[in-house]
Parts: sequence; C-alpha cells; structure tokens
Amino acid sequence: MLKKKPGAAGTSANPMWGGHYIGGPSVIMAEINASIDVDKRLYAQDIRASKAHAEMLAAKGILTSKDAKAIAQGLDAIQREIESGVFVFSSALEDVHMNIEASLKEKIGDAAGRLHTARSRNDQVATDFRLWLRDTLDELDAALKDVQDALIDKAESNADLILPGYTHLQPAQPITFGHHMLAYVEMLGRDRDRLSDARKRVNEMPLGAAALAGTSFPIDRAAVAKKLGFDRPMANSLDAVSARDFALEFLAAATILGTHLSRLAEEIVLWASPSFGFIALSEAFTSGSSIMPQKRNPDAAELVRAKTGRLLGAFTALTVIMKGLPLAYSKDMQEDKEQVFDAADTLRLSLAAMAGMIRDMQPQKTAMAEALEDGFITATDLADWLVRAANLPFRDAHRITGGIVRLAETKKCRLDQLTLAEMQAIDKRIAKTVFEVLEPVRAAASRTSLGGTAPDNVRRAARQARKRFLKG
Amino acid sequence: MLKKKPGAAGTSANPMWGGHYIGGPSVIMAEINASIDVDKRLYAQDIRASKAHAEMLAAKGILTSKDAKAIAQGLDAIQREIESGVFVFSSALEDVHMNIEASLKEKIGDAAGRLHTARSRNDQVATDFRLWLRDTLDELDAALKDVQDALIDKAESNADLILPGYTHLQPAQPITFGHHMLAYVEMLGRDRDRLSDARKRVNEMPLGAAALAGTSFPIDRAAVAKKLGFDRPMANSLDAVSARDFALEFLAAATILGTHLSRLAEEIVLWASPSFGFIALSEAFTSGSSIMPQKRNPDAAELVRAKTGRLLGAFTALTVIMKGLPLAYSKDMQEDKEQVFDAADTLRLSLAAMAGMIRDMQPQKTAMAEALEDGFITATDLADWLVRAANLPFRDAHRITGGIVRLAETKKCRLDQLTLAEMQAIDKRIAKTVFEVLEPVRAAASRTSLGGTAPDNVRRAARQARKRFLKG
Amino acid sequence: MLKKKPGAAGTSANPMWGGHYIGGPSVIMAEINASIDVDKRLYAQDIRASKAHAEMLAAKGILTSKDAKAIAQGLDAIQREIESGVFVFSSALEDVHMNIEASLKEKIGDAAGRLHTARSRNDQVATDFRLWLRDTLDELDAALKDVQDALIDKAESNADLILPGYTHLQPAQPITFGHHMLAYVEMLGRDRDRLSDARKRVNEMPLGAAALAGTSFPIDRAAVAKKLGFDRPMANSLDAVSARDFALEFLAAATILGTHLSRLAEEIVLWASPSFGFIALSEAFTSGSSIMPQKRNPDAAELVRAKTGRLLGAFTALTVIMKGLPLAYSKDMQEDKEQVFDAADTLRLSLAAMAGMIRDMQPQKTAMAEALEDGFITATDLADWLVRAANLPFRDAHRITGGIVRLAETKKCRLDQLTLAEMQAIDKRIAKTVFEVLEPVRAAASRTSLGGTAPDNVRRAARQARKRFLKG
Amino acid sequence: MLKKKPGAAGTSANPMWGGHYIGGPSVIMAEINASIDVDKRLYAQDIRASKAHAEMLAAKGILTSKDAKAIAQGLDAIQREIESGVFVFSSALEDVHMNIEASLKEKIGDAAGRLHTARSRNDQVATDFRLWLRDTLDELDAALKDVQDALIDKAESNADLILPGYTHLQPAQPITFGHHMLAYVEMLGRDRDRLSDARKRVNEMPLGAAALAGTSFPIDRAAVAKKLGFDRPMANSLDAVSARDFALEFLAAATILGTHLSRLAEEIVLWASPSFGFIALSEAFTSGSSIMPQKRNPDAAELVRAKTGRLLGAFTALTVIMKGLPLAYSKDMQEDKEQVFDAADTLRLSLAAMAGMIRDMQPQKTAMAEALEDGFITATDLADWLVRAANLPFRDAHRITGGIVRLAETKKCRLDQLTLAEMQAIDKRIAKTVFEVLEPVRAAASRTSLGGTAPDNVRRAARQARKRFLKG
Repeated sequence: MLKKKPGAAGTSANPMWGGHYIGGPSVIMAEINASIDVDKRLYAQDIRASKAHAEMLAAKGILTSKDAKAIAQGLDAIQREIESGVFVFSSALEDVHMNIEASLKEKIGDAAGRLHTARSRNDQVATDFRLWLRDTLDELDAALKDVQDALIDKAESNADLILPGYTHLQPAQPITFGHHMLAYVEMLGRDRDRLSDARKRVNEMPLGAAALAGTSFPIDRAAVAKKLGFDRPMANSLDAVSARDFALEFLAAATILGTHLSRLAEEIVLWASPSFGFIALSEAFTSGSSIMPQKRNPDAAELVRAKTGRLLGAFTALTVIMKGLPLAYSKDMQEDKEQVFDAADTLRLSLAAMAGMIRDMQPQKTAMAEALEDGFITATDLADWLVRAANLPFRDAHRITGGIVRLAETKKCRLDQLTLAEMQAIDKRIAKTVFEVLEPVRAAASRTSLGGTAPDNVRRAARQARKRFLKG
Repeated sequence: MLKKKPGAAGTSANPMWGGHYIGGPSVIMAEINASIDVDKRLYAQDIRASKAHAEMLAAKGILTSKDAKAIAQGLDAIQREIESGVFVFSSALEDVHMNIEASLKEKIGDAAGRLHTARSRNDQVATDFRLWLRDTLDELDAALKDVQDALIDKAESNADLILPGYTHLQPAQPITFGHHMLAYVEMLGRDRDRLSDARKRVNEMPLGAAALAGTSFPIDRAAVAKKLGFDRPMANSLDAVSARDFALEFLAAATILGTHLSRLAEEIVLWASPSFGFIALSEAFTSGSSIMPQKRNPDAAELVRAKTGRLLGAFTALTVIMKGLPLAYSKDMQEDKEQVFDAADTLRLSLAAMAGMIRDMQPQKTAMAEALEDGFITATDLADWLVRAANLPFRDAHRITGGIVRLAETKKCRLDQLTLAEMQAIDKRIAKTVFEVLEPVRAAASRTSLGGTAPDNVRRAARQARKRFLKG
Repeated sequence: MLKKKPGAAGTSANPMWGGHYIGGPSVIMAEINASIDVDKRLYAQDIRASKAHAEMLAAKGILTSKDAKAIAQGLDAIQREIESGVFVFSSALEDVHMNIEASLKEKIGDAAGRLHTARSRNDQVATDFRLWLRDTLDELDAALKDVQDALIDKAESNADLILPGYTHLQPAQPITFGHHMLAYVEMLGRDRDRLSDARKRVNEMPLGAAALAGTSFPIDRAAVAKKLGFDRPMANSLDAVSARDFALEFLAAATILGTHLSRLAEEIVLWASPSFGFIALSEAFTSGSSIMPQKRNPDAAELVRAKTGRLLGAFTALTVIMKGLPLAYSKDMQEDKEQVFDAADTLRLSLAAMAGMIRDMQPQKTAMAEALEDGFITATDLADWLVRAANLPFRDAHRITGGIVRLAETKKCRLDQLTLAEMQAIDKRIAKTVFEVLEPVRAAASRTSLGGTAPDNVRRAARQARKRFLKG
Repeated sequence: MLKKKPGAAGTSANPMWGGHYIGGPSVIMAEINASIDVDKRLYAQDIRASKAHAEMLAAKGILTSKDAKAIAQGLDAIQREIESGVFVFSSALEDVHMNIEASLKEKIGDAAGRLHTARSRNDQVATDFRLWLRDTLDELDAALKDVQDALIDKAESNADLILPGYTHLQPAQPITFGHHMLAYVEMLGRDRDRLSDARKRVNEMPLGAAALAGTSFPIDRAAVAKKLGFDRPMANSLDAVSARDFALEFLAAATILGTHLSRLAEEIVLWASPSFGFIALSEAFTSGSSIMPQKRNPDAAELVRAKTGRLLGAFTALTVIMKGLPLAYSKDMQEDKEQVFDAADTLRLSLAAMAGMIRDMQPQKTAMAEALEDGFITATDLADWLVRAANLPFRDAHRITGGIVRLAETKKCRLDQLTLAEMQAIDKRIAKTVFEVLEPVRAAASRTSLGGTAPDNVRRAARQARKRFLKG
C-alpha cells in the first residue's frame, strides 16, 4: 500500500551513497526503492558476515585490530538491540546493510566507515542471503523428516489395513493403508535430496567480489569462507554478484515438494469426505462453519493443497525477474528475497500442519471394507489366475475377465458372488480355485514383489524407511 | 514465519462456529487457518455490506428496525475504532468478519447475533472482496490515465525530435521521440479497457447466496445490490460463492499491463545507459552505489521492470489454487486475497513511479543525432525511392539497396556519403534526387501514412489521444 | 528435434532479404530461425490480407491494376495449391509470407515483387495473426455455447433431483443437480464475455505500419481495414508491430476458462468414482486398462482437467517472452503463434469433449439419496427454524444446533432420527414442527431466494439461461 | 486441430482393453485420448524395456524361453521397421505401447499376449520415459560442455581485452571480456550439476510396480534394473507409477538454465547494437529484413532469449497438472511427455545456437575503448586510493570521490582530465600518484583478489575452468 502521496516532498539522498547528489529521491522512489521491510530479516546473517569480513581485514592489515574490535563489539550491540526490539529501522536508509552500518557509525564513529572497505552491497547481500537460505534448508530438512516420521508410524500401525487402491479415482486393486503412507515417504525423501543438492550450490561465498570485479585490496576470501562455513569462495566475481540460480533452485524444489503435499492433502480431503469416509480428522485440524452448524471442514488440508500455487507463483516471479538481465547486478534482483522468504514460511507452516494431520488422523476400517465391495477390485487377480492356472496369454486372460466383469455388472454382484458355472460359461477352463484369489485381503497379500503392497512387504519397507530417512 | 512452536497448546474453538466442537485447533492450525492479517484490509467493505444487509432484513421484516438500527450504529462505531487504530484484531477469531461480529456483540449484545441471518461467510467474503476490487479498479484507472497524461505531454513537446527507431535493437528507420511515447499511450489505453471490462464481471453481487444454496428467508437481493452499487445479484447461488474468475481476470489484466510497463522500463534503462544516452533521468528516480561513487542507477525503472514477475506470479498462484476445485467453497480460496492485494499495491506503486520518471526525464538531442549516424538508417527510403523514381519492383529495389549498403559498410561511411557515381555503378538508374531521401529528418517527415511517425502526424495523434483518453 | 548436425554446411541467404549478405545462415540458425512449420497455418489469412493490400495499392495508383489483378489471381492459385496439398513449403524461405511471395514470383514474375511495397513482414504477420485469432474466437464462442446448451438441457431434466451440496467436500446443504449444472452455465457465460471483450482488441489492423514507422507511400489503411473486417487501423505504427497484448489476453481468458473446465472435470471424476457414484459416464468417454479388466476410467474428464496446465503454460510462456522487450519488433515475438495455436486447439478439443460427456452422463438418483443420509445436511435448516420459530438470534441458533449435531453423531443417527425429547433436552423451545424442515427435499425446496436451489427456481433459471445465452 | 467432426461415428473399443466394453469411444474421445503422435518418440526405450522384461520373465520361468526369444526377435523387427519408416502407427491403438504390442501379435502370435504379464502400461510408460530422459540428460550435458568450451576459448583469447563492467546497465568498473565470458562458464557449470543431480532421481526403475500394487508373479526387478542401467528398482509400487517429480525437476533445471542463456543472449543483443558495438556477429547467426535492406538482426540470440518463456511454460504446465492429483496413476499425467520433449528440444537447439554464436562473435576493441570514456569508471579506484594512501575510512573516501565526480560531470571531462589542483580543492590529501589508478587498464589489472578481473587471474581461471569442466 502506498504509504505517502506521490506528490509529497521527497527526503534527502541516502548519506551512504549520496556524495554526488544534489537532490533526494521522490517519495515514490523512496517507497519503491526501500527494501528494509523485507530484508531486515537478514540482520543476523549481515552482522555475522560483517564480523568475519572485519576480522579478515584486520588479519590482512587492512584494518587495525583496534578498529576491528570496535566493529565487532558494535555489531554485537546492534544485534542485541535488534533482538530485544529496541532497534529502529529507517526506511530512508533503504536496506538492512545501510541501517546497520549507520547505527555502527553512531556507536563507534569513524571505524564504522572502514568496514565497507573491499566489499559492496552487491556481494554483501548475496552473502547474507545465502547464509539465511542455508539455515532455512536445514530447518526444512528437519521438518520434512518429521512428516516422514509421522507417515512411517502410520504405515507401521496400518500395515495390514486393506483399502481400494485407485487409478483414475476408480477402484483398481486392493492395497494397504501402510503402503499408501510409504509412497509419500518416498516422495518426501526425494524432496529432501533435492533440497540437499540445492544446498551445495547455495553454500558458496560471493563475498570479496565487491561490486562486480573483485578488489585491489589484498583480501583473503578463503579465510572468510571458512569462518562462515561456506564450502568455497565463488570463482568469478561477476558471477558472484549476478547469480540467483541458487534462489531459483530452492523455489523449484519447494514447488515440487508443494505438488507432493498437495497430492497428500487432496487425498486427505477426499478420504475425510463421508462418501469415502476412510479417515477421521482431529478437531485440531478442522474447522466449523459460520452458517452450517454440523461442519468439520478439513481446512488445514485444503490450505496446504492451495499453497502449491503460492510456491509456483514465487518460482515464476523470480524466473521472470531474472530473464534477460544483463550482468552484473541489476536492481530487479532486489525482488528475490520476498519470494524466497514467503516460500520458506509457506513450507514450514505446511509441513508442520501436515505432520500434525497425519499423526492425528484415524483410519476407518469399516468404510474401507465397504469400498472394497465396489469396482470388481480383484479382476486383475482373476486374469492373473487364468495366466498361471490355465496358461493363457495375459492378453487373452484380460479379455475373458472383461467378459466376466460385464456379467457381474449385469447381475449387480461382486466377482466372488458369481457361481463357478456362470464363470465357466464364459471360459470353461475356470476352476474352483479361482475363488481363492477373488478375496481382497488375499489379493493384497499376494503382491509380494519388491515394492509391492503385501503387508509383510510394508512392514519391511517401513523398517527400511526408518533406517534410510530418520537416522542421524 | 511461524509465530509459535508447533507443539504448544492450542486455543479453544472459535465461538462463532464451535458449538459441536470439544477441543480447539492446534497452534499450527490457528496459524495456517487465520486470515485476519490479510483480510482486515476489507473492513470498510465488510461493514458497508453488513449495513446494507441489515437494512434489507429490516425492510423485509426479518429483523426489527430497532435491531437494525443498533447494528448500523454498532458497525459505524467499529469502523471509527478501526480507522483510529484502537480496534484490536484477534487472530483467534480467524478473519475480519468474525472480528467485527464479535465486537458488535460486545457493543450491542444479542442483536449482533441476528445480523448473520440469511447469509454466510461464503457470500459475505465474496461480496466484500468484489467491493474492494471495484474501488481498486477505479483507482488504477486514474493512475493509468496519469501515466498517459505524462506520456502525451512528453510526446507533444518532442514531436519533432528524431531518433533511431529499432527493431531487434538494430537501427531500423528514423522515428520521432513523440511517436515512441504515443505507442505506450495506446498500450495503456488497451490496459484501461481491459480493466474496465473486468470491472463488469467484478460488479455482480454474491450476497444472498448464503452458504451455497440460497436461503429460505424472504430476502431482497436486488435491493441490497442496488444499495451497494452492484449491477445485479448473481444468478446462481453456487456460482456466487464458488467463482473467483473475477479475481483471476484482474490478475491477468494486471500482468499484461505489467508487460507494457516492463517494456517501457527496459527502454528507460537502455536509454539512460551512456552508450545510448538518449535520456537523462532525474536524481529523484535514480540512486547511488555504496561502493562506486559515480553511479546514478535507474533503480525505479529496474524495479518496475521486475514487478512483471510478481504480477505473473500472482496470476499463476491463483490459477493453480482454483484448478480442479469442486464446487462450492473450498478453503483453498482463502489464498485469493493476498495475491490480489499484492498485485494492486504493485501496480499503484509502479504506475506512480512511471508517471514520475516520464515527467522528469530529459531527452538528449545530441546523443540521438549521433546514433542516427549508425546503421544506414535510411536504407528503406533508398529502396522506396527506387520503387517510386525508377519504377522497380520493391523486391528488386531491396536487393539493389542491399548492394549499396554493403559498399557503404566497406567504405565505413553513411549512405549519403557515397558519391552518385558509386551508387550508379551498382544501379545506373539512380539519380541525384536520391540524396533527398537519405536525410533522417526528411525520412521521418515522409512517413505520413495514418499512424506513421511524421511530426505533423504525431502532433495530431497527441491531440486525439488527449481527447480519447484524458477526457471525463 | 534437431534435424541436422550443427556442423553441417549451411544454406545460402534468404533471397528475400539477403542482398547485403555474402554467406548464409548456419544449419542451426536455419533450424532455430524458421517458423514455417508453425506459421503456415496462417496461409489463408496471409493471402486474404495480401489481396486486400494489393487492391488498395492499385486503387491508390501505387500498383497498376494489371499487376494487382495478376497478384490476386496468383494468390488464389497458391491458395488452391495449399488446400489441395500440392504446395511445397520450404524451410529455407523461413516463413509463410516468404513462401507465398516466392511462389507468386514463380507464377507471375516481376509483379510479385511489387506486392511488398509499403508493408513489412512486421505488420503483415501481426495482421494475419489477428485475422486468424478473430476467426478462432468466433469458433470458440460457438463451442462454449454448445457446452452451455448441454448443461441447460441436463439442468432442466434434473431440476428436481436432490443431492448433497458440498463445501470443503463436506456435505453442506441439499441442492438440486439442475442447480449445479446451471452454476457452470454462468461461469461459461462469463468466459464467453471475456472472449468477446478480447475480440474487440484483436480486431484492429496493424497493416500499413510497415516496419515500424509507417510509410511514405500514399496508402489508404481505412479501406484495407474495412475490406478485412477490422474495426479500425491501429493508431500508432510502432504499437501496431510491437503489440502482443491481444494474444496475451486471449491466453489469459483461455486459462481462466480452463480453470472452469477443470472444476467441472474434477466433479465428473469424483462423481464417477463408486464412492460417490452420482453419475454414470458413457463408454464413449471412458477407457479401459491394459492390466485391470474391470476399469472404465474417466480419461476424457481427466485430460480436460489437465489441460489447464497447458493453457497457463502458454500464457506464462508468452508473458516471459514479452517481458522487457524494447520496441519495436524483436524476433522473440515469433514464439507467440505456437502458444496461441496450441491453446486454441486445446480449448476446441476440451470443449467438444465436455459437451459430449455432459450430454451422455446419467445422474444416479439412488446414490445421491444415500449420500444425503450423511453429514447432517439439514442442520442449517434446524438453525434457521430456531431463528424463525423461536426468534433466536442466528448465532445462538447455530450454537444450539451444534449441540444437537453432536448428540446425533454420538448416537450415529440422522437429525430427523432424534426424538423431540432428545432435542428439547438441549433446547426446550424446540417443537414438533422442526421435523418439517429436516427433510432434504423440503430443505432444497425452501431455498427460493433469487438464485437459490429450489426446483422451481432452477426451472425458471434454466429458461432464462436459454434466453440469455443460446439465442442468436 | 480437431481432425474429425465431433458428431461423426466413433471407432470400436481398443482391443487391448475393451473386453467389457460394448460400444467404442466417440471420435472426440479418440482424439483427446490418443497420445501416439507424442509418445511414439519412446519406441526405442519401450522395446528395450520390453526385451529386458521378457528376458527376466523367462529367467524366472514365467515365460518359456521359446516365447521370450520370439518376443525379442519380434521386437527387434519392429524396431527396424520403425527406424526405416515403414511402421504404421495407429491412433486407434492409442499409444506406443499398444501399437508395438499389436504389431508383435501380428508377427509372433499368442506369445505376444504373454509379454504384458506382471506389468501394466502405468509402470511401462514411466520406465520408458525415464530411460528417454536419462539419455537426453547425457546429451544435454555434452551440449552444455560445448558451450563452456566456446566460452573458455573466447575468454583465453580475450583475457586482456578491457571493457566497462556494468551494474544497472551503468558503467561501474573496468573488467576484461575474458572475465565476463568466464562468468557464464560458472553458471553453466552449475546447470550441469543440477542436471546431473536430477539424473540420480531419474535413474530409478518403476517397472514391476504393475498397475500400482506390485504383482503376485515372482519377478526379479533388480535384474531388470541392472539390465537397463537403472541404479535400483523404486521402493514403493504406488510411488513408482504416480511420481513425476523426476520430470518436474528436469523442467525446473531447464528453466533455470534458460534464464542463464537468456542473460547471455540479452548481452549479445545489446553488444551487437551499434550504440554498444562491442561485438560483431557472424552472418551465420543473424538475418535480414524484408523491408529494411541494411539489417543484420541478431535473431538467433533473440530466439534463445525468448525460449526461457517456453521452458517456464513447460514447468508451469506440469506443475498445474500434478497439483492435487490423488494416487496412483491419473490420465492427467499423459500430458507430461509433450512438455518434457519440447523442453529438451528447445535446449538442444538453444545450446547449439549459443555455441555457434559465441565461437563466431568478434569482440570490437575500439568500441569498448570508447565506452570506457563514459561513466567515470575508475571512481571506485579513486576512493580506494584515498583509503590506502590517505588512510581515510572508505565511507569518507566515497563521499569525497562523489564530489570529484560531480566536478568532472560539470566540466564534462573524465576523472583523469581533472587537474591535481582541482582535486585538491576538494580534498587536499589527494596527491599526484592518484593518476596511476585512474587508468582503466590499470584499474582492471589491480583487481587481483581471488575471482577478480585482473588479466592474469582470468588466464589462470580459464585454465582451471578447462580442468574443472572439460575433462573426461
């Protein structure tokens, strides 16, 4: 929202860079240009990186150690002020870097002006942002692990629970609820891998690239990188200040994770609908209606489902921003942080909500059993029986089974409610043992191939998942 | 950002709908579910619509007029509290509707509980949101008009100023700066039309649809619609609470407008670069560098250019959210407002910045004149001369001109610096009068076809644009 | 797919523009640059516009009438060749314009070279593209009308059929199937309005803008516009060749329409799933499984649902392409057509599939009736009864009803299976007449407010929809 | 484009799954459902996977070795037919899998019907698609390496060439052209890493998941995975057929790569514009104009820049498609391949064009030298001199330099054209040695920090890049 009228008088130029300016920015310019409302969130990273920079400058004799010490103490004091809520951020100072440096000057005087030697806001902001994102990736990994933990628990306690597996939302074959839970454990496992791979490309240090070309001061970038936990200084100064692919990669991984969460959320919404009725959600993750007194709406699941849009929106926004930008830094790139912060917040909240919903949800055995009555769910088993017992080519077995299904549809009965004679009228090779495979529980138990849904498989897979994903 | 730890104790159920609940939401649920931080921005619309609703209920005998009066006075008092900053919004009450109703109850007691008769939050929020967007569309129309006004002024005062017109960023033909400004006036004119068309679909009233099915109370929707300035009540109650295409259409129009602004912003960035040097920007819309003391960066233009990403991100987000949602209301749709609010704010700020930049910018005649030396910019005029004077088919004239250009390239001179003999060596039909068309100023002046760049055309077009776009 | 190896020898320069070139394009350049595989689809529009252009050139004395006649006849012959499949498009000639002009030259000789007088490919392609899109918009309007027709038919024949209305996929209130169908009629009606509004901005003529600046030939753009059915020539030549907002607007409207189709498709998928079982789809719009012999999958609905992605993808692609392009024409814009063609094809196919599915689908009354047993679907009616009969504030009525719902949940019965005594134990004002409103059929019939779901309303709304949308 | 009228007669049901069908699909259904035009591109992968599957079935005694041999020979024959162009794909058979199986049946009879034992199209298509994408990733890696190779060559031969480095498209500090080239080498290196990381998640085998639940046949998935070069069979059958995050991840990495290519393409367009004039492009990668005979447009660069839109469009499309899909397979997912194929083709072509453009482009030393005259490009060096020589805090040095820049602006001269006296009037500490740092060549040479632009650094970095990226 515009905070001031466009026509109002402007402020004076930013003291940090306004040496060659006579006038100041227009009010609108101040409004569109300032990023402090967004980037103040980087204060801890900014201070941390400045301290490492100053320490290195002193080690290389570019600063006196006295100045370096004053800087470190001043920055610590500022951090305390910010964290206790007494620090006043000024929008005239544009961004978190300028706010902190200006405050440092008030605290320690001239030495503050020496801190910005051999660096620029271009490399500074990229460094702060990467530090922040690295921490965030670690938090998100833990949050994902927590959802996996909830899913594995639910899988183990429901390894035997049979329900229809669907394709096209039509009953397909019986599966176990545990198996279904473990499918999501796999997806989230790949999401964790993606974030971990992204982290490698986040964890490189731009600092020391200065504005774009490096510096003539004899700095030691490797030392600063080590101090800040970066894997290495970035190899090209232009690239260091121009690159935002690390942020795009995070947003892409977030979006893909969002699609997984949206699929699980969709299933929760479906399953919680009385027509399915496969789960009961806790009151803690539903809410009521202002008009319909009976409602228990799966709001949390719906919101998680919706958030995919927000994540794709963020990736889209930053891709459009970066498209066609010449090197090196352009102001367009200032828009990067809001998208990344929003995506990170969205994921944290969605993952926490999902972990809670999964832990609280109660599978409903009766509704699942009733649903197994629909859809001739063991038709594949009948076809497979024909292959095995009658040595038919699968394609012929499929066709014969199709005929039997059609008969059952006409008679409005389940496959196992047809008589042997009725089946034999369609194909005389059908024998009594066929009834053994028409039972959903047996059908599920028979799928013992690696990765299949048989309860013993599920128990084993859950144990392995615990080992693969939850250790360490 | 998560405001509380996931594991912390929950609150009790919302008193507005919690009658059948025993427990309350989890902390995470409260966090993900509450929209008050976003939708409080609808307070004025919510109050306005509630007053119209109550007035109608009283007119139809559903409320006593005493209750209706108490409600109206209570709502007015709440509005004053909100606008003076003393109202405290509670996140436990989830949204702006519940916050206002709860406060009304404190103020006027039981009558407050009668206000929600024959409506639901589903139709209420859709109504509030449409009222807000209608006002916003009107504001944006004025802001667009202001940019057009700045462009037309600039066009009139530079109707004669010649510079290279580019295709593929290669010099193509001489044009006037005024003509270039007017191209954007046309684009923004279509943007205004699009927003105006969108307004028609925004300005229909959902109220009275109640939760989704209408109501058995004998309400008068037409009266409420009239009171609120809506063109009509929506014709289908399910549609009324489910539809968000009005918001999508706004976001789409905003994105398209964003592409226009980004093109103009790109040109400002290019023109302000010394290699072009076609304009000087005011200090009011540039800023400096923390490391490079000489810089005057076109930050405002770069930010406007970047905002296209944000706008497309918003449209993308809401499209993803709406995709595949069954009727009627789903909680996913709560995510609509944040995207729309952000897009509206983005446009307001971008348009104001653009108007200011245009007004302040100073075209640089000398740099334009120098650039006209490059690129054989009157080659088309030479070809056209061959068509007219020598009656050649254009295609042949084009080929011959190509040969002459190649000669000039080899000689590193302009076309008009070739001798007649040199040209005649390529085609003997070339006569002395050809030199008349090789002058950029004359070339521009010759393009008098409707919509062409000739200065007289530009002056006329500017007058017409003023009439078409700035009246009323 | 790359058709040739990058290293292979190139071809010679395009004869249409290669006068000043010595070498030719690389093979890769030929591959990336040629658009003929895509834009040949514009052949009829290209020929139509060329004929109008030539006719005008002759009328203005720029061409002889003999040449104009030869051009017209030659173009007609080319059109016949293309439509009979004998015309050979050459990728070395890059695009449809050059292919047709080169063929014209073979047919009629030098006169062909005069056709390109006072125009450029820049204004030519924009004109062709707009003509094509205008026709397409008209076709899509008819296709949308056909879907509306199918929906209105289905609504009328099911005006009395009661099923649960859902919010959050939880049973909310009883509605009629006809009412549900009509909700989509409204949405598609707005989609038609949007396409119709877009058509206004499509139907303006770029031709005569030439490369970017207009022309010095004394052309008559108004005459050409009239001949081609355009509302007017575009007012600014730079804008005329640079603008693609008309294409973006179409893609945006297509995407929004896609969200509506995806919602209906989602409901078809849900309703066709046995757990809902609300409709039976025809075999004509389902397909089977290669492994599960019993399957009848709602493939058509799923594909329609998916197509939203493709449509948003197209809008996104073109927005990114246009973002930040300086005026006037840039080659980037060549990518516009493929997106628009694909979106148009997608919509045509999706709309036809949707019309077929709607016409064929059979609502299943029994399944709907069973679903009405769930979810205490008349709880709102109970609350409204308390307001009307007991004069309670709605908010109190809501709370009391919540308590009654909780009792019914505990007893696992419907609301109307509670005894009067049980209800009175919760609130003693409840009287016997309450049972009258607890019946779903009566509840639906009571919602007679404008736009409400009562069967008589639905019948009336269907008649009105027929009048509003299907006439003319 | 619709190939038939919606109303026309349908075909009969697909013989592969139509056993329980009476009628056939509508014409529209056949049109929307068939994927053969797209997925036939998977034929080689489909045949390869089928052969491995059959071999395993035989090894496990599920097929006779005679049948397995017939199947293998039949499939080989089909592959030869497809590759020689004689195979006729039928759209009635929907997809590549059915086309090949039907042809196999014609060739070898009943044994063909045994091939589909213990698998489904769901796991089959996912397997084929992953095999295809794996090969594609390897091709793209080679194509990226080739662009890096071209860039490194250009960097080495221009390690000394000085031009202005820009931020905000304003001259910032002198850099070398080689340094600029190497910035892109770094970006593309990260792109290769991303594709390589994506490959890990592509290279897992779905086959053996059958429809969704695994199979009761005693298959050996590990053996098939080994045979096909997969790292492992996927651990959960539901996940195996439902997952498309591998495709999304590829599209995301492609989009991010696209942003890098678009930035380089933008710079090529800028540099090739006469106002910059920093490079000359070869005729092989430019093209001419149909109207302006002098043009050499950087079409290839513009098209590469535009393709970012197409790539983001593809990622967007598939994200929308996958959003909210319940497990396991839904037909929506059939839309995945077209997006991935298009993105892969786009990248292949863009990378080949970029490699060619880079190799051919000729840096223009004179134009670069002229541009170094603008923008007070050594102002930072002056400030740094003040820090070093006069021991000023950087912030003070920055302010003093700002004053000197303003003086030079007023005098319209370069910094080194001011006199010592003029500078000392601003700050008396300025000494004669300051002139040593005001020379752009010396300024560039002084930036010797790790990753800085000094020519010796660039030569060293190029050698290292060759080692890091081009070996093996």
